[in-house]
This record gives sequence, C-alpha cells and structure tokens, in this order.
Amino acid sequence: MDLEYRTEQDVIGTRKLPINAYYGIHTLRAAENFNVSSQLVHPELVKAMAVVKQAAAETNISLGKLDPQIGNAIFQAAMEVAEGQMTEQFIVDALQGGAGTSTNMNVNEVIANRAIEILGGKKGDYDLVHPINHVNMSQSTNDVYPTALRIAAIRLLVHLSTACATLQGALQAKEAEFAGVLKVGRTEMQDAVPITLGQEFSAWAEAIARDRWRLYKVEERLRQINLGGTAVGTGLNAERKYIYSVIERLRALTGLGLARNENMIDGTQNADVFVEVSGLVKACAASLVKIAGDLRLLSSGPRAGFGEIRLPDLQAGSSIMPGKVNPVMPEMATQVAYQAMAQDLAITLAVQAGQLELNAFLPLVAANLLPAMESLSKAMLLLAERCIKGIEAVPDKCLEHLHNSVGIITVISPHVGYDIASELAKKALRTGKPVREVILEAGLFTGEELDQLLRPEEVTRPGIAGTRKKKQPS
Amino acid sequence: MDLEYRTEQDVIGTRKLPINAYYGIHTLRAAENFNVSSQLVHPELVKAMAVVKQAAAETNISLGKLDPQIGNAIFQAAMEVAEGQMTEQFIVDALQGGAGTSTNMNVNEVIANRAIEILGGKKGDYDLVHPINHVNMSQSTNDVYPTALRIAAIRLLVHLSTACATLQGALQAKEAEFAGVLKVGRTEMQDAVPITLGQEFSAWAEAIARDRWRLYKVEERLRQINLGGTAVGTGLNAERKYIYSVIERLRALTGLGLARNENMIDGTQNADVFVEVSGLVKACAASLVKIAGDLRLLSSGPRAGFGEIRLPDLQAGSSIMPGKVNPVMPEMATQVAYQAMAQDLAITLAVQAGQLELNAFLPLVAANLLPAMESLSKAMLLLAERCIKGIEAVPDKCLEHLHNSVGIITVISPHVGYDIASELAKKALRTGKPVREVILEAGLFTGEELDQLLRPEEVTRPGIAGTRKKKQPS
Amino acid sequence: MDLEYRTEQDVIGTRKLPINAYYGIHTLRAAENFNVSSQLVHPELVKAMAVVKQAAAETNISLGKLDPQIGNAIFQAAMEVAEGQMTEQFIVDALQGGAGTSTNMNVNEVIANRAIEILGGKKGDYDLVHPINHVNMSQSTNDVYPTALRIAAIRLLVHLSTACATLQGALQAKEAEFAGVLKVGRTEMQDAVPITLGQEFSAWAEAIARDRWRLYKVEERLRQINLGGTAVGTGLNAERKYIYSVIERLRALTGLGLARNENMIDGTQNADVFVEVSGLVKACAASLVKIAGDLRLLSSGPRAGFGEIRLPDLQAGSSIMPGKVNPVMPEMATQVAYQAMAQDLAITLAVQAGQLELNAFLPLVAANLLPAMESLSKAMLLLAERCIKGIEAVPDKCLEHLHNSVGIITVISPHVGYDIASELAKKALRTGKPVREVILEAGLFTGEELDQLLRPEEVTRPGIAGTRKKKQPS
Amino acid sequence: MDLEYRTEQDVIGTRKLPINAYYGIHTLRAAENFNVSSQLVHPELVKAMAVVKQAAAETNISLGKLDPQIGNAIFQAAMEVAEGQMTEQFIVDALQGGAGTSTNMNVNEVIANRAIEILGGKKGDYDLVHPINHVNMSQSTNDVYPTALRIAAIRLLVHLSTACATLQGALQAKEAEFAGVLKVGRTEMQDAVPITLGQEFSAWAEAIARDRWRLYKVEERLRQINLGGTAVGTGLNAERKYIYSVIERLRALTGLGLARNENMIDGTQNADVFVEVSGLVKACAASLVKIAGDLRLLSSGPRAGFGEIRLPDLQAGSSIMPGKVNPVMPEMATQVAYQAMAQDLAITLAVQAGQLELNAFLPLVAANLLPAMESLSKAMLLLAERCIKGIEAVPDKCLEHLHNSVGIITVISPHVGYDIASELAKKALRTGKPVREVILEAGLFTGEELDQLLRPEEVTRPGIAGTRKKKQPS
Repeated sequence: MDLEYRTEQDVIGTRKLPINAYYGIHTLRAAENFNVSSQLVHPELVKAMAVVKQAAAETNISLGKLDPQIGNAIFQAAMEVAEGQMTEQFIVDALQGGAGTSTNMNVNEVIANRAIEILGGKKGDYDLVHPINHVNMSQSTNDVYPTALRIAAIRLLVHLSTACATLQGALQAKEAEFAGVLKVGRTEMQDAVPITLGQEFSAWAEAIARDRWRLYKVEERLRQINLGGTAVGTGLNAERKYIYSVIERLRALTGLGLARNENMIDGTQNADVFVEVSGLVKACAASLVKIAGDLRLLSSGPRAGFGEIRLPDLQAGSSIMPGKVNPVMPEMATQVAYQAMAQDLAITLAVQAGQLELNAFLPLVAANLLPAMESLSKAMLLLAERCIKGIEAVPDKCLEHLHNSVGIITVISPHVGYDIASELAKKALRTGKPVREVILEAGLFTGEELDQLLRPEEVTRPGIAGTRKKKQPS
Repeated sequence: MDLEYRTEQDVIGTRKLPINAYYGIHTLRAAENFNVSSQLVHPELVKAMAVVKQAAAETNISLGKLDPQIGNAIFQAAMEVAEGQMTEQFIVDALQGGAGTSTNMNVNEVIANRAIEILGGKKGDYDLVHPINHVNMSQSTNDVYPTALRIAAIRLLVHLSTACATLQGALQAKEAEFAGVLKVGRTEMQDAVPITLGQEFSAWAEAIARDRWRLYKVEERLRQINLGGTAVGTGLNAERKYIYSVIERLRALTGLGLARNENMIDGTQNADVFVEVSGLVKACAASLVKIAGDLRLLSSGPRAGFGEIRLPDLQAGSSIMPGKVNPVMPEMATQVAYQAMAQDLAITLAVQAGQLELNAFLPLVAANLLPAMESLSKAMLLLAERCIKGIEAVPDKCLEHLHNSVGIITVISPHVGYDIASELAKKALRTGKPVREVILEAGLFTGEELDQLLRPEEVTRPGIAGTRKKKQPS
Repeated sequence: MDLEYRTEQDVIGTRKLPINAYYGIHTLRAAENFNVSSQLVHPELVKAMAVVKQAAAETNISLGKLDPQIGNAIFQAAMEVAEGQMTEQFIVDALQGGAGTSTNMNVNEVIANRAIEILGGKKGDYDLVHPINHVNMSQSTNDVYPTALRIAAIRLLVHLSTACATLQGALQAKEAEFAGVLKVGRTEMQDAVPITLGQEFSAWAEAIARDRWRLYKVEERLRQINLGGTAVGTGLNAERKYIYSVIERLRALTGLGLARNENMIDGTQNADVFVEVSGLVKACAASLVKIAGDLRLLSSGPRAGFGEIRLPDLQAGSSIMPGKVNPVMPEMATQVAYQAMAQDLAITLAVQAGQLELNAFLPLVAANLLPAMESLSKAMLLLAERCIKGIEAVPDKCLEHLHNSVGIITVISPHVGYDIASELAKKALRTGKPVREVILEAGLFTGEELDQLLRPEEVTRPGIAGTRKKKQPS
Repeated sequence: MDLEYRTEQDVIGTRKLPINAYYGIHTLRAAENFNVSSQLVHPELVKAMAVVKQAAAETNISLGKLDPQIGNAIFQAAMEVAEGQMTEQFIVDALQGGAGTSTNMNVNEVIANRAIEILGGKKGDYDLVHPINHVNMSQSTNDVYPTALRIAAIRLLVHLSTACATLQGALQAKEAEFAGVLKVGRTEMQDAVPITLGQEFSAWAEAIARDRWRLYKVEERLRQINLGGTAVGTGLNAERKYIYSVIERLRALTGLGLARNENMIDGTQNADVFVEVSGLVKACAASLVKIAGDLRLLSSGPRAGFGEIRLPDLQAGSSIMPGKVNPVMPEMATQVAYQAMAQDLAITLAVQAGQLELNAFLPLVAANLLPAMESLSKAMLLLAERCIKGIEAVPDKCLEHLHNSVGIITVISPHVGYDIASELAKKALRTGKPVREVILEAGLFTGEELDQLLRPEEVTRPGIAGTRKKKQPS
C-alpha cells in the first residue's frame, strides 16, 4: 500500500503522490485548487512550454550554469513532452489562477521526474534533478508562459490559415463548376438582378481568401517574445548572454522566426497581440457564419424553399420525417464560429484586465484562443470535405426563379425604357405570371432574343446586357 | 479480427462498428461529421435525455403502443444512462449540427443496445429493440432535446444557487468576524470615509445573496416543456393522452415541477428562456469579478499595497521570488466568471439565430450554458472554502491607513466646521503628516476624544459621528 | 461684451460662463474634460436626478435644515427640470469620468441658478442659493446617482413592457386572422410538417408575451435605493430621520414603489441589478431578431423566395430596381436589437469593473441601458404599427408549398403505413412532381379525402390527422 | 400657411414637406419609419457619400451621360455637403432599415435640391435636377454605401492613428522624465522586483505604439471599393468606362489610395473588413483600459493607496469630501474603451448576419464603427493632454514601498545566497520591519553598498545587480 505513494514537500507542507506520477506536489495542489472547468491546459501549450525548457537547458549548459549530465537529461525529457508524450500527466485546469505558474510547475515537475528516470533515479528524488533549480533555471513563469503561448498560437494559426486555403480551394472548384448556372441575385432577401451560382461561390471564396491572408500575415506579430525578462521584464538575475542565446536556440528548435521583444517589460505585461489575433479569427468566423447561412438559404426546401443547390446527405435528418436531410455541416460551422466570437470576448476580457507588470489572466487567453483556432480549422476542413465538395446545383430551379422574378426587368430596362419596364413589372405582379412570359406576351422580344439577352456573360458582367452583342458583326 | 466488428446500415450505406459499442451507425457518422471541438455533450444533458426516454417508454407501455417486455428493457437501460453509467458511449461533439438529432440518436442507440443486452440479444440486433421505432417512439428530437436541456439546466441551476448560498455564508461569517475592524473606505480608488472591514464583506455577501435568490427563482421559467409537440410543436402523430401522460411521468421521475407549455409551437422554436437564465448567470459572474477584484486590491502588497487583508497561502507563488503568495483563487474565480460572460454571448448568438419552427443551434446553447453553471458553482465553492474562510484581517494596517487619510476629516467636519476641517486637510497634505496627528496637534480633540469619535459604531452608521454619544448619560 | 459673461470660481480657478447659462463652472469644466462621444446624458436620467433634488429639498425644509424660502425655490426649479424643461443646459458627455459627479453638479448648478432667478437674483449669485450647500444638501453623488438611475430605468422599463404589449397584440390579431392559412412548417430550413400561418404568429406573440411579463416583473428589483447612504453607504453625516423621510417623499413624487436598500453599502457599490435588467432586455432583443428574421424569410421573394406573406410597402426600395420593396422594418428592428446586445456587453463591462465602495462606471451603464430600452420600445411600436398590422398572407403560395412538399407524407403515414409513405416520398423526389399529385396518382385517397385530411384542424393539432373525423357520425 | 409647405410624390403617395427643406419625400418617410435611436447618421458618412456623388457626376458628364449644366450644379452641391454644410438636413436615424438606401436618398435629395437652387429653380422642382435620375445616375445604394463607409472609416482611422501617436508621445515624455524613479514592480498585485516608473510608462507607450502601427497599416485593407458594381456587384447597367473613371476621380477627390475590388460581388456582400478593423480598434481599447487601470492603481490614495504618482487635478471630486480628487480622465477613457468593445460586438453581429448578395446591416456597422473610432481618438487626445502630461511622480513613496518590500530580497539573493535571503525575508515579515532595515541590521551591507546595489541601472536591466559595479576599478 505504502509503495503506491511517494511523499513530497513544499513550503506549505507534505502531500502523498501516486508513485508513478511524473507530476509533483505543486501540480497536485494546483489541480485541486483549480478544479473548475472540465477543460485541461491545451496540449499545444504544454508542448510549447516544453520546447522552451529545451532551449533553456541547452543555454544553461553552454553557459556553464547547468551540469551537462543533468542538462541533457532535462533536454531529452523536455523533448519527449514537446513531442506530445505523457499528456496524461498535465492535470491542471485550464482556468487556473496564478498567471500560468501552475502549468509551468506542472511542466517543470514532469520534466524533472522524467529526467530523474533517465538518469536512473526514482521519481521524486529532486536532488538529482530539481524542478525549479534545474528545469526552471534562469526562467520565470512570467517570461516562459507568454513565450510558450505565442509559440502555440503561431502553430495553430498556421493550421488555421491552411484550413482557409483548403476551404477556399473547394469553393473555387465550385465557382468554376457553376460558372454557367444563371440565377437570380437577392438583396435584402428580395429578388434582384441576375447572377451566376459560380459568382456566389466566388464571393465566398474571396472572403475566405482574405481570411487566409490575414491569418498568415498576423503570425509575425506573435514572434516578439519576452524570454529572459524574468519576473517583470527587466531581466533581473538573467544574464544578457543567456537572453540572446536562449532565443536563438528556441528559434532553431521551433523553426519559427522568433525575436526578442526589445521592450521586455512591455512583452511581460501586455497581451494586446492576442486581442489582435483573436479579432482576425473572429473576422474569419463572421465570414463563415455568413457563408453557412447562405448555404442554408440556397439549399432550403427541397420543395418549399429556395432549392437552388443540394447539399450532400451525410446522415439521416429526422426520425419522424423520413427523407429529411438537414444542412448539418453549415450548422456545425455556424456554431463553431459563434463559439469563436464568444471566445474572442473572453480573450478581450482577460487582456483588458491586466494590471501593472503582469497579466494574471493569460491562462484564460490560452483557454480560448487555442481551442478557437483549432475548432475553426477543423470546422473549415470538414465543411470543405463533407459539404462544399459534394454540393450540386439545381439549374432548373435557378432558372425558374430567375424567369419568374422581376429581376430580369432591370435587364431589359435599358432596351425598352424605364416606363415600359415598370409597366411590365406591374403586370407581372398583378397577374401572377412569370415575368419572362409577360415580356414575351408583350411582343417586345422573341424567346430567342430574350435568351440571348439573358445569357450569363451578358447579365452578370459590367455594362448593359445586349450591347456587347451589337458590337459583333451579324 | 472480424469478430471485433459488427455492421450496421442506414439510408446512406453500411458501416462497421466496434462489436462492444453500445452506440450505433448514426452516432458513428455524427462523431465523424462533427469532430471539431474537444468538448463532448455535457453528461447532465445525456442523463436528462435518458430520463425523458424512461418517461416515454412508461407512457408508451401504458397506452398499449409498446410491448411491455421491450418497454421495460428500455426503461431499465434508460435508467442506467440517467444514473450516469456508460458515459464513454456518448461520443458526439458538443458543437454538432442537426439541432441535437445526433445526441438524440446517440442516446437512442445506446439505450437500444443496452436493452437488447438486457433481453439477452446481441448488440446491433435492432429487431429486438429498435432505436427509432421503440426507444424514440412518439418522440422527435425537436421535443425531446429542448425538454432535456431544460431538465439539465434546472439541475445545474440548483447547484449554482446552492453554491451561492455557501459563498454567501462564508462571506457573512467574515462579516461578523471583522465587524470591529475599522478602516478607510475608498471610492474611485481614492481615500474616502470610514467603514468597517465587516461592512465590506456584508456588501459582497449581499450581492451573492441576490444572485442566489435570482437563480433560485428563475428555475420556474425553465419548467415549461414542449414534450409531445413532435416535429414543429403541433403534436402531429402524438396523441393527446400520450402528451399528458408523458409529462406527468417525467415529473414523477425527476421530482421537478415540469409542466406542458400550452403553446408547444412556441416551446419548440423559441429559446429565449436560455438567454434569460444565462443573463442571470452573467449577473452572478459580474458580481464575482467585482468581489475577486476587491479581494486582490485589499490583499495587495503585502508591503507595497493596501495590505488590509491576508489571503490564505495555497501554493507557492513564484519560483524566482521566494515567499511570494498570489491571490490565485480570486484570479481563478475571475477567469471562470469571464468565461461565463463569453458563454452568455455564445448563447445569445445561438438563440437569436433561430429560424421558423426550430432553433438549430440549441447544441451551442447546451455547450455553453451547462458548463457555465457548473464551473461557476465549483469556482464559488472553491473560493469560499479555500480563500474566504481563511482570510485574516490586518487591523493595524487598516487603522494606519485610516488615521493617515483625509477621510477622517469628514468625520470631524460637523464638529469643527467645514472651514477648519478644510484647513486641517490642507495642512496634512502639505506636511505629509498623518491626519490624526494633525488634528491632535491642532488641540481640537484629545486622543481619547478622537478615539471615541472614530469608534466603528459612530462613523459607520447613518448620522453625525459623536452625536449618539451625547444621548448617553455621562 | 463683458455683459455676456459672468465669472465663476472653484478650487482650481476661475472661468467665464455665458451670462445666460444656468449651468456653472463645474459643468463647464466637465463638458470640456469629457468631450468624447456625441452622446449627452439621457434626458430621463436628468429628470430623475431632479426629482431626487425635489425630495431632498422638501425633507431638508421639514427637518429645519434648509431655509423654506430657499428650499421652495429649489423645489420649484427642480420640478421644472424634472418635467423636462431646460434640457439644453445639460451639456456633459454621457461617458463622463467621476462616477456621475459631473451630472450631479450639472443638475445642482442648473437648479441653483434657476432657483436664484425665482428668488429674483442673478445667475451665479450662489450666496442666494448654493449648488452644493443648498441643492445638494445631505446628498452625495454616490447616493443620488444610483437612485436616479434606478428611477429612470424603471420609467423606461414600463415603456418597454408596454411596447411589448402592443407588439404582442398586433401579432395576436394576425394569429386570429391567419388561423385558417395552412402552410408547411420548416425546421432547419427544410420542409417539415404542416402548420398554420396563425400558429407561426402565435409563437412569436408568445415570445413577446414572455418578454412583457419578465420586464414587468423585474421592475421591482430596481426599487431598492441607497438614497441617504452618502459617500460609501454608511450614511455618515446624514441623519436617520432624513433617510426615512427623503425616500418617502421620493415615493410620493414619483409614484414608484421605491424602498430603502437595507444594506446601503451594497446599494452604493454594487450594480449587478443593471446586468440583470439588461439581460432581460437582451432576451427581448434576441426574440426580436428571431421574429424579424422569420418575417424576412417568409416575405422573401416576392417570386423567387418563400413568398408566403407580404409586408406593407413603406418606402421605395431601390433606385435601380423599380418595384422592389424591402423588409425595412424588420431590418431596423434587427439592428436595434443587435445594438441592445452590444449595449448589454457595455453594461456588463461597467458593472464587473466596480471597485470597493463605488462603481465609477455607472455613467457607462446609464449611457447604454437607457437608450437600449428606449430604442427597443420605439422599434417594437414601429414594427407593430408599420409592419405587423399591414402584413397580408399569400394563401395560394402557402398551399402550393405545402402540397409540393414531402411534409404531407408524414400526415398520411399513419394511414398508409411507413413503407408506402416512404415510397411515395421517393417517387415525388424522383419525378419532381408535387407530393399531392403523387398521392392522388397512387389512388390511395380521392382529392376530397385528401382535403379532409389536410384541413388545418386535422394536421396542426396533437394526434393523428383524420382520426378525429372518424369520431363524428357520417 | 400654404407657402410653408411643398408637396412631393413617390410610388406610395404624396407628402407635404417644409418648403425650405433640402431633403425630400424619401427622406421624410425614412425619418418617420426609423425614428428609433437618438443617433443620426454620422457626419463623416454623409460627407463621404457626397464625395462619391461628386465623382459620379464628373464621370457621367465626361461620358456624355449627364448634361454638364446639371452635372456641374450637382458637383457643386455635393461638394458643399462633402465639406460639411447643411448637416441639419440629414435627418434619418442611424439604425435605418434598407441597407443604407435612405441615407443614399437623403443625400440624393439634398444635393438635388441644392443643385436646383444653384440653377435658379425652386426646391422640389425635380424636372431640373432629379435625385435618382441625375444625382444617383449609374449608382446603386449597394455600391455607393459600402464605398462611402470605407472612405469615412479611413478618414477616422487616420485620426485614430494620429491620436495614438500623441498619446504615445506623452507617455514617452514621462518615460524619460521618470527614468530615475526607482520603485517596486508588482505582479498579480503582489510586491515583486524593482523597476523604474519610467519603465512602466515605456511599457504603456509601447502598447500604444503597436496600436498606432496596426491602425495605420490596416487602412490599406479598406481601400478596395465596389463602386460601379451596382445592385449585386455584377455591374449590370454600369459601363466599364464609368467604373474605371469614377474610381479614378474618387481617388483624386479624396486623396486616398482607393482601388477597385476585383471581385465586386464580394465587395458588395461581404463586410468582414469592418470586423477586422474593429478588432484592431478593440485591441487599442483593451490597451487603454489596461493603462487607465494602472494609472488608477498607481494614483490610488493619496494616503491609503499606492500613491506613487499624482494625476493632475481637473475638477472638484466630491461635494461631501473636500479635497478629494478623482482619476476622472482614466475613468472616462475606460468607459470609451468599454463602449468600443461593445461597438465591436454590434459590428460583428451585423457582419455575420449578411445574406447572399448584400449585407442589409451596414448601417449598424456605420453606427458603431465610426463613433468608436471618433470617441477613442478624442479620449486618447484628452487623456494625453489633460492627464498624462500633468502626471507627477512621488519618488519618496516609490522608494518607501521598495525598501519596505521583499522585492529587494531577490536583488541581494545572488550575493548572499538563497538561504540567507529567505531568512531575511522571513524576518522582515515576522517583525514587520522594512526589508532594507532588516538587511542593514544583519550587517551584510552598509547603507552605501545597498544604495549602490539598488541603483536603477543595476536592478532594472538584465543581469545580476552589482556585478556591473565590480568591473569598475574601485
């Protein structure tokens, strides 16, 4: 029985720990103190903290501050964590108090115990490798945590930008496929002038392309790190050599273009960059809600709605109404996007509440920014793969709507004059007849002429429809 | 190898499932379609859906629609889920599309397979017990899901209200303990007039008492359910007898005062009640941020801040600065409260986006409302237990601040006149001396008289300090 | 030239004021310091502050603290302000710092100068009536402002609740008018089972009825006031007699059920009640967005959309597309509702940021809560009057959609069996024919029988359609 | 009497208008329909719309579509509006339905009537100059409005960026002034290691510098305009020549680097760029709240708070507590920033709700984005001018806090060893003595040595304090 536990001590007292636990007493206390959400610290943040530990260990060895044997064990242990091993050892709640100290200590303890193991010792034998004195050497939570959060954010940002590219590609494929599907445009939900279905996809693709570019560009804002700033950014007790070296090594280890924030005091206390990044994530979310809403509108029906496109059938829609297919992927994407908007608020609340030399609420930033980027990435990839790619146009329905609508009145207006056009519009509304029919009845155009006039290339590009044709020799 | 899988079929095709899985093909497809957040459906929602299934099974048996043997197996299986068993079988993402259909199907399939097992069959043998025809009999996701969400919300609301009571109690205990600790009040962060530390705790307790009462009262708004409304709330294909009976049985099974929404069409499509409830959760969150902020202010220091109270030391605060203790519990509570504010936004976004006969975004409501209530409950209990209860006053610091401040000038002002009071204030500011000292030097009061005047009961209750004393016989 | 100005003095120095200005030097400085938004203090707040001044003047006279001649002049001047006169004299920005002190001083100065005028003096002659010593006697901004904000909020809340009643009434009138208009219900934007247009209006009316009731009920939460609490709520330098009397008089003057907050310290610093009230305003806003969205969906078209209702034509919709009518009133209502959601966030931000004995951000609460309630009231009244009342049904379109949709398959399913029903559904989808036609072709029902089955009272109430009929003697 | 009115007609009927009104019947109807907020359309938007009208008139003249006499009168009239004249003629509510059509018509009508006047006609004589046929020629609200909104946003963005520069400059001036004021740093509100007051100002300045740069850079995102896209962005009925020419002229008239959005369909329907811009405005707001909060903390007191800086005294702070000075400018700035965060939510809500070929809620975007930028600009300028510039340090208080705090233990720790340092810390806490005193008593340093060690340049730069000194010859 006694064998199953080991005992550790801190300034407050002693605690028993499961003998196989890599985490230690600081982690245990934190896990108990902050058991509030069911959300743990994001794995990407843990990995990023571990890579910082690798860089620090290397630097401390090279500066002669850390025994190479200990340092190498730390480096290897940290590398394992940085690669995603031992994830079950990171047990502290994401909404922890203490500005991330507990996550730092969780990482320090797991690495220390794993390093002890590597050196042949028993977990808990901190004389061999000490979580603070060795693993955390030359560091403070206040420089490690903001640095790691930036690294994790950059990594997920790259995913998000890539997911945008995938969605953009899927939309553009459909833009090409549907280039010839003429339909009515709608403004304020009312029938307006002609457009092609391909053009509608192009507008969505354009919005996502903008997101992709924005998210790609903003990555550079996250590169300024305060590693070496220690407690308040002044760098007290951290040597200049260490500061320059550790960032260089971190750059090498991550392959990211990290650079020292020249004002590390700023970098320690200010977190506005996360509001900036989150604001762009939110812009992406807003576009996604808009696109998903359009997909739901255009696929509404199949009979009693717009019915201009058909979404792929992914799962049975209703237990009570057989054959019902619901736009589940756009609905999912909408919810993920709404969640990201909410997460942006949480991030803003956290950032504005910073005080003096530190922002104690960075864990809240991490707990919202990282999942927001991850979920949006997945949602866009799933939407592209399982919805956009399988969308089919319903060209007959598109054309029926167009010919039925007063939208085409605007097309013939320059040819017949505004007054006659208005008369035709009124007649169509009065009689309930399709507008095309009303125009033909009036004898102003033959069916063929009208078809010519209403060709996609005539009515969906700048200029007056039918005027291009005239330039051509007949 | 083949033995490890079974094959199921739906309208889209066939899929292999792990042979031991209680969930079925609909669940599997949904789990793949909606793999976006790392958040699963909240356990309380699953439990609440299962209790609805119990009520439906009972009713269907009693109305002669469901074979009693099948019905009883369903009832038992549902009861097991309602009690929290087989939680690992609920694998669909919380942010699912489809208005909750996938969660309903997940519950239907798990109950069906467990019921099959109870009846001695093999999982997947839906001829014995069918997820839709039997488990979902007389139901639609559109009435089951909103009903279950209300039940889950009520249950967590009760916890939250109880947590408020605990926190209120802890604050009131300190109100009594610190009733005699006189200190300076602060408005807009500037020294104002005297107050007691107990009074400060009383104001916090009062705010939490208000939350407790509000959350307790709002529970009744959640009681109106649309069970029996089927697809759009008209109750098509559900008999009146069923509707009345199923709600009665649900009331009995849950012990909650559920009642039929007389307008089930409204109950099916409108979700404003969740905005209402979340708004109150947010009010509680706002109070919590305010209180946590005050705790952080009053405990700031220990030397270079307000330093009027001492928070219990729960964990080491800093690896670099020995002895540093951070206000980790107020920081945690602040973050949980900020998260709840963000969750309120997600809920609002979901609710406003409802369309016609259904709100497709109820899963987003569930994914935010239930965790918000749960996390806030835990945060308040932890704050009470691990922080409030252990707070100690620093009476000397409180008194030093008071005597040093111009706040006491306001106390003596009615006795010496506004002009003399102003002179003393200016002198104190000019010389930098404590105000008490300046007053004594002026010879207007003896130290004893001043102590009398500044007794808590004189300066922290309505009226002019020192006038009560005169009523007493000397 | 000199005649056009008078000079006033405060602790900081002297300033020239327009000779006819009722406001004084404190107001002038504040107007300059806070010239940031183009929004002035809400008139209802000014009026409410003035009525507090009336009550204070009466009380101070009756307690012998205020010369009756001065007091009566103050009372009269305050009454004029309370009635909405001299609004142009309130020139301080709504987003003022100072926790409302500047609005209090603006009110004090205007009343003082108007009282001076009443007594035959010249503006600025504060020896006659002093803004602080007389008008503000026994008061502090910290008790006057929160009290006045509650009064103003109650008054606008009553308007809002009344506006809900008007909108509810308009919706219910249409509910009755359209009770017989059968149509297809839609869930997740997909064709579902039958419903009547009247039932759709009933669901909207029900949501607004709920808002009305909530807003009506929450008024009582605003009644607890801290008047008499002075600077921090302890009531220092305010006599008990004054406190009881001033609230009684305020109750009489306003006709509102105001009561003393038994914990005035709480009442001075905590503002959670405004989050509570705003949360309910937001719930109302969410319902409004939902209803407005449905109106825009159902009126989409007129030809290429749902086209089931026609909104009244209020203004020309497009300069380029003649005859286009846009759903401008629902669009307006949506925007007002979105604004209210944003205002709710501002209120939450203000309330959570309170510190210790005061919330310095009450002006932000006022600048958002009062306009939110006022705008929503107006939006609902305009929506009712200019949109809802004039809505016309398009019954033919409604029926066409229904007969065309697979929704009616669910109706006949209990009569023909699930399998045959499914076959018919598939055939309809395959051939593109209206479902009604497919059913008739199958020879399962005559047209008359189908009409019977599809009567509104059969398909839009609980139970199986057609089973009621059988109970009647043939 | 009759002379005071003129009568105008539209498709709905006739209305009387004040004879001197420049606006016409469309404006009047809109003003009545949308009388909901007390906020009118922002003047910058009106000006920007007018400049678009100028460009269109010029282009239409040059293409021979518009009679030069009429065109020139329109150009002149539009120029007057663009310069800010006749502002009282723009009477439509900011929260108008109709996607901005009413603002477009308001501008069209005012310009038409002013042009008529210029040509010697009487207002209302639209045969001379017609609001739609002439002023609105080749345009649609759907291309004019988004274009004008971008122009207005760019102009206010430039102001905002400039205001950032001013605030940054003011903060940097203080950074220099306070470079030698040593004090204690605080993390999580607890005493930490030394820092200078100048460094604190530098961190604030850095954050604002970042805002400045971001806001400066994002301007280019707003330059893509859809002018010429007409109703849905396809450019139907607008000639290519017109499109290229009108944008060129607009560029010349505004001096802004406007360019044609190559996908005008995208430019007509998507509004994500406003979420992007608003997100950056919000980042600026978050920094402002943080800085304002720090100012309030550091100036708390004057006696019973941190008291390390003194804010300039701008207005009397309290009627009841003489001499009280409140941090009114930081409070004002905080509120403006909170308002901007709320406005960001309104913008997000508007943008995500766009549907198909248009976003009907651009008026809500305008009603929030433009005031947010304007108010933040003013708030930052006022904060710089009236607060930052007048801030005084209280060096004695700063030093007292530092010497009293355990923060300096961290400084001597590398010199005396961690164990002795911890002992000294404990002793200080136990005895309540200032830490400096405890160190001196221990005889480890002379006062002079300690002063050397604690020189700002030793303790507030990277490295171990005192190690630099050793390099110097003694």
